[in-house]
Amino acid sequence: MNKPSVKQWQEPAPDTDFDAFVTVVESRRSVRKFEPEPIPDEIVERCLDLALLAPTSSNLQSWEFYRVVDPDKKQRLAEACLSQPAATTAAELIVAVARTDTWREHSRKMVEVFDQSEWEWPKTMRAYYEMMTRIAYGLGPARLGGAVKAVVEPVVSLFRAAPTLPKDECDLKIWAVKTTALACENLMLAFRAAGYDSCPMEGFDERRIRKLLKLPKDAVVVMVVGAGKRAPGGVYGPRIRFERDRFIHTV
Amino acid sequence: MNKPSVKQWQEPAPDTDFDAFVTVVESRRSVRKFEPEPIPDEIVERCLDLALLAPTSSNLQSWEFYRVVDPDKKQRLAEACLSQPAATTAAELIVAVARTDTWREHSRKMVEVFDQSEWEWPKTMRAYYEMMTRIAYGLGPARLGGAVKAVVEPVVSLFRAAPTLPKDECDLKIWAVKTTALACENLMLAFRAAGYDSCPMEGFDERRIRKLLKLPKDAVVVMVVGAGKRAPGGVYGPRIRFERDRFIHTV
Repeated sequence: MNKPSVKQWQEPAPDTDFDAFVTVVESRRSVRKFEPEPIPDEIVERCLDLALLAPTSSNLQSWEFYRVVDPDKKQRLAEACLSQPAATTAAELIVAVARTDTWREHSRKMVEVFDQSEWEWPKTMRAYYEMMTRIAYGLGPARLGGAVKAVVEPVVSLFRAAPTLPKDECDLKIWAVKTTALACENLMLAFRAAGYDSCPMEGFDERRIRKLLKLPKDAVVVMVVGAGKRAPGGVYGPRIRFERDRFIHTV
Repeated sequence: MNKPSVKQWQEPAPDTDFDAFVTVVESRRSVRKFEPEPIPDEIVERCLDLALLAPTSSNLQSWEFYRVVDPDKKQRLAEACLSQPAATTAAELIVAVARTDTWREHSRKMVEVFDQSEWEWPKTMRAYYEMMTRIAYGLGPARLGGAVKAVVEPVVSLFRAAPTLPKDECDLKIWAVKTTALACENLMLAFRAAGYDSCPMEGFDERRIRKLLKLPKDAVVVMVVGAGKRAPGGVYGPRIRFERDRFIHTV
């Protein structure tokens, strides 16, 4: 009956190997030509698992990954990626999708998880998923909730820090895409760590991909990740980055 | 005079350590309470360098990172993050920002890089940055370019795969935020790999952060990353992920 409070949770950090991580990040390049050899199934699935360990806003897991293995669909997907070699030669094509409406169901599921947990979770966390996510991510009937937020927020912000919340479909898309992109980076690094490579593609025909995958209205195609064994000449030149001080500001 | 063609570029993949990478990804949790000890300066800067090695759409590097070290500014930033412990206890607070207009200047810079390179880059790549990025990312005067794209794209798409391009400010924001989020994930994993931890925060007052950092109009605050040494009890419970088949679809 009496569960232990989750506030007692301890999770010490294990030792890590920084240089091994640096090798993964530094050697990840967008690879645009792959060898024909397949990636073993268990490696692909493992990399997808690692994608889902990225942080996700309010833990609402607004991501989805479609691993396209059916040969006909895979060919149509490569065509929707404008038949670029990164798509046509890829052993694997994975479509990353962001969802702007699953937060409702996932809020309910969070409460279920708390109920079924062997730990006692704080009441404030339950209340967050029972009520606050509706205020945070809901736009309300006829988008009136969003309009109210747009009026109230700047006024409150004058007196105290007020969270900037999604107010329209655009804000919700940005919110869901952001979380999905974090997972995409895990996925691409995971392929590299496993000895394979990837290419994130944004040059694609979203209409055709939506149709191919029968995506619901609230889905946004974030990117198509091609993956496989790096072919000689698969990296199209040295990496180009502009001066660091253009991007890193210390204030 | 005659430079070697970059098509001869070879970049074989080095050996990597998958288990070491898995340890980093699996042990990365959102840490909400940090020890007071600082992160050595060279580690923070190194992690920021690794952030900038994430892939970036068309290599246009639409990201920026503000490392806030000034004590007064840092306190105001923590307040803008609603004074959550992940912000108030963090040794480092880094604001990730997406830029929707730097693609113009960065397109020009890409052409400069080609000019100054010891390699001969394909003419099509130069043309891409001299002309195509304007069509891809430009909205045109009075957003007319975006409107034209919105009309033309679905028609072309009926006959052949046509790239889905940004048509309005929302699309551009999504585009820039996506690239910035990829870099954020590198940053957070890098902290973990270096023996530190992080918390991505989206609960913040964007108005106040914009004012504090004097951000330009085209900037979007993507997230605030708090980082430091994990304190006991800094992870607020076991990781929760819903059933895998909700997110991973094989088609």
